[in-house]
Amino acid sequence: MSGDKQFLSDNAAAVHSRVWDALRTADAADAPYDGDALSQALDERFSDLFARECMALWVATGTAANCLALATMVQPHGGVVCHREAHIEMDEAGAPGFYLHGAKLMLVGGGGAKIAPDGIRAMIDPIRDDVHQVQPHAISITQASEYGCCYRPGEVAAIAALAKERGLGLHMDGARFANAAAFLDCAPADAAGPVDALSFGCVKNGAMNAEAIIFFDPVAADLARYRRKRAGHLQSKGRFLAAQILAMLEGELWLANARHANAAAAEIGAACKERLLYPVEANELFVQCTADERAVLRGQGFGFYDWGVDAARFVTAWNTRAEDATALAQAIGGL
Amino acid sequence: MSGDKQFLSDNAAAVHSRVWDALRTADAADAPYDGDALSQALDERFSDLFARECMALWVATGTAANCLALATMVQPHGGVVCHREAHIEMDEAGAPGFYLHGAKLMLVGGGGAKIAPDGIRAMIDPIRDDVHQVQPHAISITQASEYGCCYRPGEVAAIAALAKERGLGLHMDGARFANAAAFLDCAPADAAGPVDALSFGCVKNGAMNAEAIIFFDPVAADLARYRRKRAGHLQSKGRFLAAQILAMLEGELWLANARHANAAAAEIGAACKERLLYPVEANELFVQCTADERAVLRGQGFGFYDWGVDAARFVTAWNTRAEDATALAQAIGGL
Amino acid sequence: MSGDKQFLSDNAAAVHSRVWDALRTADAADAPYDGDALSQALDERFSDLFARECMALWVATGTAANCLALATMVQPHGGVVCHREAHIEMDEAGAPGFYLHGAKLMLVGGGGAKIAPDGIRAMIDPIRDDVHQVQPHAISITQASEYGCCYRPGEVAAIAALAKERGLGLHMDGARFANAAAFLDCAPADAAGPVDALSFGCVKNGAMNAEAIIFFDPVAADLARYRRKRAGHLQSKGRFLAAQILAMLEGELWLANARHANAAAAEIGAACKERLLYPVEANELFVQCTADERAVLRGQGFGFYDWGVDAARFVTAWNTRAEDATALAQAIGGL
Amino acid sequence: MSGDKQFLSDNAAAVHSRVWDALRTADAADAPYDGDALSQALDERFSDLFARECMALWVATGTAANCLALATMVQPHGGVVCHREAHIEMDEAGAPGFYLHGAKLMLVGGGGAKIAPDGIRAMIDPIRDDVHQVQPHAISITQASEYGCCYRPGEVAAIAALAKERGLGLHMDGARFANAAAFLDCAPADAAGPVDALSFGCVKNGAMNAEAIIFFDPVAADLARYRRKRAGHLQSKGRFLAAQILAMLEGELWLANARHANAAAAEIGAACKERLLYPVEANELFVQCTADERAVLRGQGFGFYDWGVDAARFVTAWNTRAEDATALAQAIGGL
Repeated sequence: MSGDKQFLSDNAAAVHSRVWDALRTADAADAPYDGDALSQALDERFSDLFARECMALWVATGTAANCLALATMVQPHGGVVCHREAHIEMDEAGAPGFYLHGAKLMLVGGGGAKIAPDGIRAMIDPIRDDVHQVQPHAISITQASEYGCCYRPGEVAAIAALAKERGLGLHMDGARFANAAAFLDCAPADAAGPVDALSFGCVKNGAMNAEAIIFFDPVAADLARYRRKRAGHLQSKGRFLAAQILAMLEGELWLANARHANAAAAEIGAACKERLLYPVEANELFVQCTADERAVLRGQGFGFYDWGVDAARFVTAWNTRAEDATALAQAIGGL
Repeated sequence: MSGDKQFLSDNAAAVHSRVWDALRTADAADAPYDGDALSQALDERFSDLFARECMALWVATGTAANCLALATMVQPHGGVVCHREAHIEMDEAGAPGFYLHGAKLMLVGGGGAKIAPDGIRAMIDPIRDDVHQVQPHAISITQASEYGCCYRPGEVAAIAALAKERGLGLHMDGARFANAAAFLDCAPADAAGPVDALSFGCVKNGAMNAEAIIFFDPVAADLARYRRKRAGHLQSKGRFLAAQILAMLEGELWLANARHANAAAAEIGAACKERLLYPVEANELFVQCTADERAVLRGQGFGFYDWGVDAARFVTAWNTRAEDATALAQAIGGL
Repeated sequence: MSGDKQFLSDNAAAVHSRVWDALRTADAADAPYDGDALSQALDERFSDLFARECMALWVATGTAANCLALATMVQPHGGVVCHREAHIEMDEAGAPGFYLHGAKLMLVGGGGAKIAPDGIRAMIDPIRDDVHQVQPHAISITQASEYGCCYRPGEVAAIAALAKERGLGLHMDGARFANAAAFLDCAPADAAGPVDALSFGCVKNGAMNAEAIIFFDPVAADLARYRRKRAGHLQSKGRFLAAQILAMLEGELWLANARHANAAAAEIGAACKERLLYPVEANELFVQCTADERAVLRGQGFGFYDWGVDAARFVTAWNTRAEDATALAQAIGGL
Repeated sequence: MSGDKQFLSDNAAAVHSRVWDALRTADAADAPYDGDALSQALDERFSDLFARECMALWVATGTAANCLALATMVQPHGGVVCHREAHIEMDEAGAPGFYLHGAKLMLVGGGGAKIAPDGIRAMIDPIRDDVHQVQPHAISITQASEYGCCYRPGEVAAIAALAKERGLGLHMDGARFANAAAFLDCAPADAAGPVDALSFGCVKNGAMNAEAIIFFDPVAADLARYRRKRAGHLQSKGRFLAAQILAMLEGELWLANARHANAAAAEIGAACKERLLYPVEANELFVQCTADERAVLRGQGFGFYDWGVDAARFVTAWNTRAEDATALAQAIGGL
C-alpha cells in the first residue's frame, strides 16, 4: 500500500520528529488520565490560540472527537444537519447514531461538500414543528471539507447566524482544520468562526493518535468529559495524547505542516487545472483522469485512490517529499 | 501526584524501552487502520500464545476492550453477571450501559472481588423466565481481580461450565491478565480458561495505550470490528497500537514485566502478612493501617491511595524500583 | 378538525361496532399481559390467514409494530433500506433510531413511495464492504405505500429475492395492508409475499388501538416479546388488544372495511383522473388542485390536508359515508 | 388463572362501567393523536387536582409512564436511585436502560420497599465526584410501594429536600397512587409531594389501558412529548386514553375505586395481623403462610401468588367483591 510516491492519504503518515520528542518527554510524568500537567495545559494553550476561553479535551480519533462534540448539542430524539458526503455520514460507521443514541443525520447537498444557509434552510424549513418529525438540534460542517474546500470566515459566520436564529448548535469537524487555516491565512478564530465545538485534527498532520475537541462553553466541556470516559476514550496515560497536541501547537508546527502539505497539493493542482473537480484549497486533489491514465501514473510509481470511474484522489501530507509532488505534477501534466 | 516512591497505581507507569523501540520502528509503515503488517500479525501471535485459533483486535483502553467484547455476547435487553466491585460496574462510568445499549449489570458478591458458580446461581436462578425480568446473557470475570486475586484454572473452568450450561457468554477482563498468568505460572490458555473473549491488558504492564481483545470465534471478532469503528476506536495509525502489543509479547516481555511487579508486591506483602485484606497474588496490596500510620508512610515519601478509613492500597508496576519495594516493605513492617 | 365530510385521515376514524362488541366481551377475561385466551389465539388465526405458521404479537401503534419488527433483523450498527418518504423515515420521530439503537435508515427513491430492486441496488452496491460504512441489514417496504400504491406480488417477490441474495431481512409496514390486500384481491400471503415480518394494521381500519406484528420465525418472535416489554408496550390488559385484532379477522371484517374505503377512494379518483398524482389503489388520493380550488372544496364542507402548494390529500376510511364520497367526487369533478 | 375469588393482581381487573361509558362517548371525536378535546382537557383537570399547574400526557402502560418521566431528568450517562425491589428495577425488563439510553439504576434498601434519605445518602455519598463513576441524576420512589406501603407526606418531603440539595430530579411511580392517596386521606398534592414527575396509574384502578404522566415543568413535558412519539406511544386515537383518565377523575372515581380496594385489603389484613410481612396500607397483602396453608386456601377457591416459600401475596382490586374479601379474611383467620 505504500510505495515511493504515496498520495493515498494523509491519515497514516509518519509521526513528526517533534511529536516523537514530546512523547518521550511525556514518559516521565505519571499522573493518570488527564490529571497530568500536559493535559492540564491544553485549555490555556487553545485559549491563547483562539483568543477566547477554551476547554480542550484529547481523544484518539476524529470520529470520537466529532461524536463527543455533537453529543453535547444533540438530544437522542434530535438531528444533525450535515453535508450528504460529510465524514460523519459516510465514513464513521454510524458512530453518530451510537454516540447520539439514535439521533438522525439530516443530509444537505452543496458544492465541494460544503453546505450553505440556503441548503440548510431547504432541509429544515419543511420539517413540521410537531412531534412526528425529527427536529434539528445542530449543524455540523467540515473545515476543510471532504473535498478539500475551505469555508471562508463569512461563510461560517452565515451558517452560525442561521444556527443561532434557529437555536441549533454548531460543530466543526476540523480533521484538516490546519490545512484550512493555512489556506485561509487568517487567525484560527476566524477559520473556526463562532462554532460551539471544534474537532481540532492532529493525526493527519503529524501526530500519532491525538485529536483535540475544543469547547467554548464549560457546561458542554464538562458533559463531554463524562461521555469521553463512558466511551472508553479516557486513556490512563493521557499525557501522551496531550503531549502530541502541545507539540503540534508549539512554534506553530500545525500550521507549518499544513502549509507544506497544501503547497504540495497546490503545485500538483497547478499542473492540471483543467482536470480538477474542485478547487485545490487544502491538501486534497480530485482529478479527472481515465482508467488508462491512472494506470500510467501507477506505472510510474504513484499511489492514490480511484475516485469513481473517471477520477482519482490524491492527498498530500506534512511529509510529502517535494520531489514527489513535483514528479506527480509533471506526470499528470504530461498525461 | 508522583513522588520518588510511587505506589499509587500501575496505570500511568512509564512505557517500556522495548515498546518505545517498537513504536519507532512502526513509524515506517503506512497502511491505515488495521491494514498494516503489524496489525495483521496479531491473530497469529495470539493464536500461538493461546495454542488456539484467535482473532485479536487492538483498542486504546481497557474500558473499550471490555465493552466491545461484551457487546458480542449481550443483547441490549440482556444482562451481564459480574462482581459487585468489578471494574465494569465501578469504574467505567457506565460504559457497559452505553456499549450494550442499555443492558444491565447483575451484581454478585464474592471474596477478593472474585465470583463463583454458587454466587452466580444465587443471582440468576431467582430470575423468572419471562419477559418482565432482564435475562442474563453473559458473565464477566476479572483476572486478576480488582483486589489482586487470581482465579485458578479450575475456578474459571467451573464458571465456564455454568456459563455453557445456561447459554451465557463468558468474558474475562484481563487488565492485569499478565500478573495473573505470572502468578499462576501456567500456560496462558489455562490462566484464561475457556472464555469467549479476553481483554488482554498491556497499558498497566509497560505499554503506552494499547490493549488487545482476544476472540476465539470469528463471528464475534467480525462483529467487534464494526463496533470498534462505530465507537471511534479504529485508529488510522493503528500500527502503533499493534506494535505495542507485539512488543509486549516478544520474548515474553509481558510475563517478565508482570513477574517484576508481582515480586515487588510479594516482598511488601511478606512484610505485613497480618495486615493484608486479601492475599497478594498479583501486584496490588490492600493493607490495614490507620490514618496515623498512613501519615507516617507518606512522610517517608511513599505515594499510595487510602482504601476506606482503615486501609491503604499499594500497587506495584513493571518499573517499580527494587529499592523502593524493599523500603516500603521495611516501612510497613516497622509501623 | 372534523366536519361532516371528513377526508383528513383514516387514523382517527371511529371504532367499528364489532370491535366494540369484542372489547366488551373481553372484559370478562382476567389473565394478565398476553396470557389470556384471546392473545393466545392470535398465532393460530394468523397462521390460518397466511397459510403458514405465524407468531403474532399485539401492540398499540404502528410505529411500535414497525420498530419492534425491524429490531429483530437489524443490529445497532446496521441499516434499513427504505423509501425516502417511508413512514419510518418521515413520521415516526426517529423511532427506528431509538428501537434499533442508532441504526441508520438508507433512503431510496421510487415512484409512488414504492421501492424496487434497481433502486435498492443503487443504494447498497456502492457501500464499501468495510467497517467504515454502515452496512444494510434489512429492507422495509410499505404495503400499501405512503402514496396509496400497492406492491404487486411479483414486485414483493423481486425485492425478497434481492434481500435473500444479500442476506438482508425484509419487513413490510402494513399500516394499510388491508387496503392493499383488498385492492390486489389475492390471498393475504400473496399480498405480503415472503417477508420476514409484517406490521398488520388495524387502527386505520376500524380498531381502536391494536396492531399485530406477524413473524414467520419463532426466534424473531421471541426476541420481539422481550423487546415489546422493554419498550413498555406489553399491556397488562392485553386481552383488549387481542380482542380488537380478532374482531378484525372475524368474518373478514378487515377486508370488508378496506373494500369500503377503497371503493370510496376509487369513486372519487374516477372523477378526477387527470388530476391524480398517483394511481388510486388503496384509500388515499393525491389530487392536483390550486389553492383556490381547495378553498372551494373546503367551502363546501370537505375536510382534507393540503399536499404541498399544488395538491391535496384525501383519505377515505372504513366509515366514509357513501354520500360523502359521491359528493366529493362531484365536487372535484366540477372544479 | 381466574376463579371465583381472585386475589392474584389488580392489573387485569375488569374495566369500570363509567370508563366504558367514556370510551363510547369518545368514539364520536376524530381529531388524531392528542389534538382532541379530551386530551386537551387533561392539563386543566390535573392542575385542578394538584392545585398546581400541571402538564399531563397519556400513555398506555406504567412502564412507559415511568420511563418517559425519568427520561426528562436523567442523561444517558447518569443514574437513578431507587429501591432494590422497585418495579423499574425488577419488572420492567430493562426498560429504564432502553429509555434512558444506558443510564444505571442505583439500588437502595429500605423496609416495605420504601427508601429514605439515609439510605439514599449511603448509596450516593461514596460515589466519587469524578468521571469514572456514574453520577446520580434522579431519585424514583413508588407510591404506594411495591409492598403496598405508603410514603407519608413528610417522608416524600424529606426525600425531595435531599433531591433538591443534590440537584437530582424526583420521580414518583404512582401505579397505585390512588390507593396511597386514599389511605393517606390527604390532598393529592400532599400524597405526591414536590416531585418533578408523577406516573398517575389508572389501569390497576378501573381503566383499560391508560396512565397519565404528570409534569410540573413545561420544558420536561415538552421533552416527553417528543420522546413519547419516538417510543411509539403516541396513539392516533389518543382520545380513548384521555377519556379513560378523565372518567377516573370525574366525581373522584379514582378515589372511590381505591377506597374500595383498600377496604377489602384492610378487612383481610385485620384478620391476620400477626401474619403480615408489611402493614396493609394500600391494596396488597403479604401474608406468612406455609405451603400447606396455601393449599388449603386454594382448595377453597382463592386465587393468589406464592411469595417466596413462606408467604403469599393477595391483591384486592376496585371490583373485589365484598363477600370474597370477607370469605378470604375468614379463611386466613381460620388457618
